[in-house]
Amino acid sequence: METLTVTVDKEFGSAMGALFHQIITDMKVGAPLWEDFLSKASKLHTALKSTLSVIAAYLDAFQKIADSATNAKGATKDIGTVLTRICLRHKAVEARLKTFTSALMECLVLPLHDKLEEWKKMVVNLDKEHSKEYKKVRADIKKRTAEAQRWQKKAKKIRSGMAGGNAGMMGQNPNGNASGGANDRQLNAANQELLRAADAAQIDLNSRLALLQETEKQALKSALVEERSRYCLFVACLKPVMSEEMSMMAELSHLEEIITQLDKHTADPFSLPSSTEQMISELKGTTDH
Amino acid sequence: METLTVTVDKEFGSAMGALFHQIITDMKVGAPLWEDFLSKASKLHTALKSTLSVIAAYLDAFQKIADSATNAKGATKDIGTVLTRICLRHKAVEARLKTFTSALMECLVLPLHDKLEEWKKMVVNLDKEHSKEYKKVRADIKKRTAEAQRWQKKAKKIRSGMAGGNAGMMGQNPNGNASGGANDRQLNAANQELLRAADAAQIDLNSRLALLQETEKQALKSALVEERSRYCLFVACLKPVMSEEMSMMAELSHLEEIITQLDKHTADPFSLPSSTEQMISELKGTTDH
Repeated sequence: METLTVTVDKEFGSAMGALFHQIITDMKVGAPLWEDFLSKASKLHTALKSTLSVIAAYLDAFQKIADSATNAKGATKDIGTVLTRICLRHKAVEARLKTFTSALMECLVLPLHDKLEEWKKMVVNLDKEHSKEYKKVRADIKKRTAEAQRWQKKAKKIRSGMAGGNAGMMGQNPNGNASGGANDRQLNAANQELLRAADAAQIDLNSRLALLQETEKQALKSALVEERSRYCLFVACLKPVMSEEMSMMAELSHLEEIITQLDKHTADPFSLPSSTEQMISELKGTTDH
Repeated sequence: METLTVTVDKEFGSAMGALFHQIITDMKVGAPLWEDFLSKASKLHTALKSTLSVIAAYLDAFQKIADSATNAKGATKDIGTVLTRICLRHKAVEARLKTFTSALMECLVLPLHDKLEEWKKMVVNLDKEHSKEYKKVRADIKKRTAEAQRWQKKAKKIRSGMAGGNAGMMGQNPNGNASGGANDRQLNAANQELLRAADAAQIDLNSRLALLQETEKQALKSALVEERSRYCLFVACLKPVMSEEMSMMAELSHLEEIITQLDKHTADPFSLPSSTEQMISELKGTTDH
């Protein structure tokens, strides 16, 4: 039974405890990554905001071209109409880009930024709590291990005393009744009490060790959940931002049909639409009689 | 027949000629619109270029978050894998935005910019050529009109002389043979020659007027085609730019499926994946016997 005590002390440190510490370290190392990400996202927000005003000016200039085609007295009304549709579609995309830009700040940067300090404290706390608890239980276990070892020594002496009378029994469980009536009579009542106490100490130690394992498992789970929940929060913050991207895409998808229409209108730039040819004939007609 | 000469002079100016001048004016007025558009498109190009470098930095920071989730010893590998997919998808979008930004400059701004001077010269030329031709033909017509009018006066005198002998014939076509043999004999050979010359002058004038109409029609058509071909060129330049937008959209469309996957993974941030629960049990198992 001594072997278990040693194993626990070593394997514990190298398995669950080691993983716990690894996760704590991962989270500590992760902090500057989050800060860097939020700083870059902030810069993206700023860049997009200034791009948005440039896009607005671009689309206004585009609309003026479309208007000039639509309002021209000549043969460009059909092209102007489609250019206006393209412009309106891009204004819808621009509006989505605006909400995307806001979402980047409101839904991603600000909420995560608020969490960073909390996260740092949380890791320190998890680590401290775990250390405190672990040290306390370890100290207790150490004390009880020493105690159990003292009892084991005494029990060993009794058993080696017994071994003088019955060499064949050496090393066998002293509680065993298989050794028969003659050996039983060799152990007086005090010795029997002592052996029972030694066993009780070992059982008590074992249950403490099991408790320590359970405590370590809970600490490990808390660390795992803490770490995972951070990425889950990140995803939750990212979702409204990506949802705006999806909407932007939906607005753009209408362009396809408009482009096809434009292709048809502008297939031959050097021939006039039939409506224009008709108009010219009518104009000529007014002076033809 | 005099009425036609007057009508042409007036209606010509108010119909085809007026439209020609309107289109020339539209094109002249349009020049600053194109300049403004190209300047705004240039600014958009610059803004997008600087946004692109910010996006690259943002995606790098994003990838580091994804990597930290993937490489963590804890329970975040599944989330990390999906975050990496999101990041890769956005890097594809970034690449498309890069070609979009290049296309804006290479396919739209530069080619149109090269055309602006040519366009200005073209309008001036069209206008000048039309004026020159119109003035020349008009001067010719004026001369021939005066000539025809002189012949008409002489013809009128002859006819009024004839009217003394036959009042009922006044105003009738002098070529008409219905007036009978007695009146024919009143016109001597010289008078008949004069009337024939007067008619020839009018016919010649009419064919010159028809030619002027045809010339005006051709000038109008040239102006219409010139105007329309500008918008067609604009569309042709716009198409590769919009095509990049479409590709960007196609890259984004893959996001939808990834988001669904991410939703599944992060539905409950406080429960660990079953693989992690399994790993914990195994870790605990190594010290449980």
